[in-house]
Amino acid sequence: MLPESQRERLDVVLVSPRNPLNIGAAARAMANFGFQRLSVVAPFAPMWRQARSAVGAPELMLSAVESVTLAEAVADCTLVVGTGTLTYRKPEQPVVALPDLAPLVARELARGGRVAVVFGSEKHGLTRDDLSWCHLFVEIPTDPRQPSMNLGQAVAVCLYELAVHAVPTTESPSVESATLIPSTTSAAPSGRLELLAGVIEEAMQAADYSPRGMQPANRHDLRLLLRRLALSAHDTRRILGLFRRILWRMKRIPPAAQPQDSA
Amino acid sequence: MLPESQRERLDVVLVSPRNPLNIGAAARAMANFGFQRLSVVAPFAPMWRQARSAVGAPELMLSAVESVTLAEAVADCTLVVGTGTLTYRKPEQPVVALPDLAPLVARELARGGRVAVVFGSEKHGLTRDDLSWCHLFVEIPTDPRQPSMNLGQAVAVCLYELAVHAVPTTESPSVESATLIPSTTSAAPSGRLELLAGVIEEAMQAADYSPRGMQPANRHDLRLLLRRLALSAHDTRRILGLFRRILWRMKRIPPAAQPQDSA
Repeated sequence: MLPESQRERLDVVLVSPRNPLNIGAAARAMANFGFQRLSVVAPFAPMWRQARSAVGAPELMLSAVESVTLAEAVADCTLVVGTGTLTYRKPEQPVVALPDLAPLVARELARGGRVAVVFGSEKHGLTRDDLSWCHLFVEIPTDPRQPSMNLGQAVAVCLYELAVHAVPTTESPSVESATLIPSTTSAAPSGRLELLAGVIEEAMQAADYSPRGMQPANRHDLRLLLRRLALSAHDTRRILGLFRRILWRMKRIPPAAQPQDSA
Repeated sequence: MLPESQRERLDVVLVSPRNPLNIGAAARAMANFGFQRLSVVAPFAPMWRQARSAVGAPELMLSAVESVTLAEAVADCTLVVGTGTLTYRKPEQPVVALPDLAPLVARELARGGRVAVVFGSEKHGLTRDDLSWCHLFVEIPTDPRQPSMNLGQAVAVCLYELAVHAVPTTESPSVESATLIPSTTSAAPSGRLELLAGVIEEAMQAADYSPRGMQPANRHDLRLLLRRLALSAHDTRRILGLFRRILWRMKRIPPAAQPQDSA
């Protein structure tokens, strides 16, 4: 069982939930398994109000954090985990089956990190863009004939697995996941990675790295890359320093002079 | 993962469910994890009709078996498992934590048995009488501050655990559960145990074993005992034969003659 002090550092994030019954069910599952921090991204306002004011709504619903973007919701988190089934998608992130997730989460919590488990809307789950904020995609192993789970039930199953099977362990559950995050250093929170991504993107633009039309695709790929690298807080600080320096240097060079300078 | 041929021998039994949304959610979780056999005991009729006719109701809802009593619903099952939390009750059955259930169920299915996982009504869960039909009580390890789970979520969590973690194993998960059912013989189905209980009870009455007022309590205790003994089909047949013979013999003796005879 996960210690209470560690459960407090696990956020359940619902992206654009619509059905108040599902939001209530998700909150109830959290209370059942001893998790307290609910975060809701861009909820459909009338439904969210209705869910919060429902009779018997757990207390954690009232203290839920509301964010406009997923980036904002997970900014403090050092491990962001997107959930879903593989039937309808081929994620760009490393995929971990739910039964193998618990040791990874336990380790991240044990070393003082903060974990977000992110659930998509009832209609279409997490989008490719939502997933670009995630370090991992967690597959709930459902039957291919009926792969899509009800939101409240998906939350219950994931939290059950984490609460009950997450025993911090010294052995690595698999090579892929073991190399994903170095276990001895503290990981960079999502917000820091985003700051770094912004500076790198600025440097790309200053260097005329690619045409303007490519910028959204580059931004997406950069976001994936930074999460795949599993940068520590220290790494992030150093790379950020480097790119700020590069940027400062580039901005001092008049654009026309650049080709000659670099020759 | 449990093989498909074994999932077909696992019944989900809902006792007196009331809320059509919960029945639908339970059925959906079954479909998500590849289980097909739904059994409903004494449902509240209008709600059950509503649940069955709901748009998008999984096919297994239409093929669901309806029974009047739990005894009838589990008559063919060789392992009957009641679910709930320990917060409000102290069951008379051996208690197994949900994470330890999978190997037991896998073994029972692997040796050709039929398993029932029984869920109580939304209002009060399984009663003491319901549980007297169960070999085991499975505890879903929830937070004592919010122990009671939503029916659909409880079904999802249990089936997830069984579908994903039930790998048939040769080692015993614990001494208590290992001794509960001998692994080499086939267990007696619930209906056979009930037949035996009926004959033993008749013998008790013929022998004036206890006053009439004690009969319901004796019946309850006998039911628990027969399940605790983990009788094989063969054991059951022999004991049944013995008690039938005793009964036949006792009925040939006029009651008044009995004390002298036995002296």
